[in-house]
Amino acid sequence: MADEIRANLMEQIKDQGEVVRKLKTTKADSTKIADEVAKLLELKAQLGVDNAGPQKLILKTPKGTRDYNPEQMALRLGVLEKVATVFKRHGAQTIDTPIFELKEVLTGKYGEDAKLIYDLKDQGGEILALRYDLTVPFARYLAMGKVSSIKRYHIAKVYRRDNPAMTKGRYREFYQCDFDIAGQYDPMLPDAECLRVISEALTSLDLGPYKIKLNHRSLLDGIFAACGVPHEKFRAICSAVDKLDKSPWDEVRKEMIEEKQLDGDIADKIGSYVSRQGGNELIHELRKDEILMKQPAAVSGLEAMELLLKYCDIYKITDKVVFDLSLARGLDYYTGIIYEAILTGDGVGVGSVAGGGRYDNLVGMFDSKNKAVPCVGVSLGVERIFSVIEAKLATKGEKVRTTEVEVYVASAQKNLHEERMRIISDLWEAGLKAEQSYKKSPKLLAQLQHCEENSIPLVVILGERELMNGEVTLRVVKTREESQVRRENLEKEIRKLLGY
Amino acid sequence: MADEIRANLMEQIKDQGEVVRKLKTTKADSTKIADEVAKLLELKAQLGVDNAGPQKLILKTPKGTRDYNPEQMALRLGVLEKVATVFKRHGAQTIDTPIFELKEVLTGKYGEDAKLIYDLKDQGGEILALRYDLTVPFARYLAMGKVSSIKRYHIAKVYRRDNPAMTKGRYREFYQCDFDIAGQYDPMLPDAECLRVISEALTSLDLGPYKIKLNHRSLLDGIFAACGVPHEKFRAICSAVDKLDKSPWDEVRKEMIEEKQLDGDIADKIGSYVSRQGGNELIHELRKDEILMKQPAAVSGLEAMELLLKYCDIYKITDKVVFDLSLARGLDYYTGIIYEAILTGDGVGVGSVAGGGRYDNLVGMFDSKNKAVPCVGVSLGVERIFSVIEAKLATKGEKVRTTEVEVYVASAQKNLHEERMRIISDLWEAGLKAEQSYKKSPKLLAQLQHCEENSIPLVVILGERELMNGEVTLRVVKTREESQVRRENLEKEIRKLLGY
Repeated sequence: MADEIRANLMEQIKDQGEVVRKLKTTKADSTKIADEVAKLLELKAQLGVDNAGPQKLILKTPKGTRDYNPEQMALRLGVLEKVATVFKRHGAQTIDTPIFELKEVLTGKYGEDAKLIYDLKDQGGEILALRYDLTVPFARYLAMGKVSSIKRYHIAKVYRRDNPAMTKGRYREFYQCDFDIAGQYDPMLPDAECLRVISEALTSLDLGPYKIKLNHRSLLDGIFAACGVPHEKFRAICSAVDKLDKSPWDEVRKEMIEEKQLDGDIADKIGSYVSRQGGNELIHELRKDEILMKQPAAVSGLEAMELLLKYCDIYKITDKVVFDLSLARGLDYYTGIIYEAILTGDGVGVGSVAGGGRYDNLVGMFDSKNKAVPCVGVSLGVERIFSVIEAKLATKGEKVRTTEVEVYVASAQKNLHEERMRIISDLWEAGLKAEQSYKKSPKLLAQLQHCEENSIPLVVILGERELMNGEVTLRVVKTREESQVRRENLEKEIRKLLGY
Repeated sequence: MADEIRANLMEQIKDQGEVVRKLKTTKADSTKIADEVAKLLELKAQLGVDNAGPQKLILKTPKGTRDYNPEQMALRLGVLEKVATVFKRHGAQTIDTPIFELKEVLTGKYGEDAKLIYDLKDQGGEILALRYDLTVPFARYLAMGKVSSIKRYHIAKVYRRDNPAMTKGRYREFYQCDFDIAGQYDPMLPDAECLRVISEALTSLDLGPYKIKLNHRSLLDGIFAACGVPHEKFRAICSAVDKLDKSPWDEVRKEMIEEKQLDGDIADKIGSYVSRQGGNELIHELRKDEILMKQPAAVSGLEAMELLLKYCDIYKITDKVVFDLSLARGLDYYTGIIYEAILTGDGVGVGSVAGGGRYDNLVGMFDSKNKAVPCVGVSLGVERIFSVIEAKLATKGEKVRTTEVEVYVASAQKNLHEERMRIISDLWEAGLKAEQSYKKSPKLLAQLQHCEENSIPLVVILGERELMNGEVTLRVVKTREESQVRRENLEKEIRKLLGY
């Protein structure tokens, strides 16, 4: 057994042990625990067996990734289509970029998260890395093509070498659904539409109640300045504030003081701001804060926020948004409004399902004359949405169809496969979705059972006698009603029963 | 300027120089040559400027890759949807696998082509590589999930570190559209359906005339044995024969003798076989070849081919297929029928647009007990298809719509943006695809021009006086007909004009 395989296996065993321990401490459902223990034992067995026997591959997908089986794919494609429908309703075009970029395209865009970028091996060519998000490649695309305005969506996979909690719907390979508006426009008009897009998408996915938290990078900068944070520490402190959705204030405060060498007094002042949230009344309150109002960044941030809240009202999403001073967003490239959507219903866990903001300087970083293209956008994290929907379906015990087969061509006696082939060939020709057994003489019962299990609505059944009369049997699977149909009328009868 | 950037640029300049030289030697269209020369000069300028100035990024996508702009994406999505429709018509489910696999999953599956695999850098985790095709991950999926039968399609990107001729539609990152049938079934029933699937897909894409070449690996093995090729050289000789679609026999013969140390006599014997193609008559001819018929592999291969041709006849694709003894397919994993589709119309160039075959042992390579799952499948190479369709559209001067916007909300006077927002919000609510300007006071002419340029069928025009009367103007862009519509009837009127 190769060392690396063994190392992988050990790592898996460690991870799986963790899963089991967690389930036990949280007193999870006992069958769930038993399942996970079984997986652990299997892993340990592999280690033993493979150690003794010949070198054999451990069958797994890379850490933090997974296969999607047909049920999961049907669900996923349904979600992605709903999201795309919303993006298209807002007039977006779509583009695609390569899954990897020159490494230097990604360099200097992600702050502390840059360590999570997947590098490709240098095999005697360019230095490449897998894309970390869809935003930086979009900015590179705009700069490269000298595109100064576009409204585009992009639904594709991105890659992060995170230590993901897969049970929470976090992966190293995952889909993002991005909608961005690039161009020099009037304040908050594109920004408000992005919020409306989030709202329409989450509503159409029927995920239960949600909130979109809003904040403004200028306002945050103004607050940091008013509290006395040195300018060069703004991004580091911002990155600490960003952790408030997962960690309590005490921990974040500690990080500010110990890791980022901030004075305790300054941290406390920040703490008094970032604990506040609300709507227009919070804007009025902050306007009365004289120290804060001496910071031009804070003043312009508040103005922007006020206009945005007004537009949210026109777009009828006031009840979905909340102005939240603790929202910071980790990435370096945001310059204006930032936002993040979270589900607030019972049992869906925490964590954001969408986020985004304005990034006016990113495109300029790629332009030789630093020509800026102002941009604002939103990214939906659909993996978490898949998890939520999967859990819902499991609770209801609902099953998703994984094929679209309309009619199955079956035979009631042996050796009718060539007749079946003739008929199914005509059905395909007519554009009908049809399948048959790949066995020459399958059992009728097995064929009918396949139809019931796969919710195929109709079956054409071939029998020797009927064929001689130029007829076949057409059966409705659900009701088991059967009728004799002349071969030349078969297509018409099928369409009639399918209702088109 | 970093050395690697400079090296990249030098490489680009070299490649572009090649492009220009080729165009000149082939006496290509002069504007085409001028375009490419301009690109070359720009590249050279970059080298000069960047050399002198501060370090600046070269804006490009990685070698052998490209962005897709909205026009290209609209075209591409249209093609992929047509292909998926055919796959679904045949009852296929879809799955997805990660874009990278443990390197060892890919090892030993691709023969001489393994050198083209993209490796990821070892960043302190597993040894990973980007998938080279969708077939090996599919086999890994089947073995891992102990799936013994499935009909699945998978449309996704694959990666090959080739030296691609991008002008011919060959890339390092490209889409494959795969349809595979896994399971223990009766001979040639799934295989024939794969051929029918290729035929339906190519017909539905309207690519002009095409041929599907057929051969059988057992028959090839039988021929090699009959000619006296040592058994251990079968795969290497097969790989040489595979080059016959691009190289003349003399070169392939030379490779067999010089690189693969085959006797000249044996090579000549092979040459006399692989030059033959036909239909049933070729089968009868080969049946009379006594030396060949002493090889059991040849006998079973011929039998399979005969049955397949019979089924092709039932599936009405006899005029599309040709039994071609020169077809070999490069990959190691094929075990039975192999096929490859080529376009045969004028001006579409050569090269295959689809290929595949039977691979009965691949899944077993991943199973600890070598449990085999017989599989047969087809892969459509859609990048070349995109190129062909793009060229066609360019000739016709046709333009593809890149958005689906049904109605644009415009204002005829200044500062009506909030009114526009109220109306567009209602339209979105009603599920209509609508967009507006992100400027507070755009010029009416500019708004109408946007609609004409983007083939948006309808415009709602807001004016102060009409708004006071509770009315708006609804304009049909093509005919420029306008009517006054009450706000409460707007949605209904729009649907009426859109015809639903």
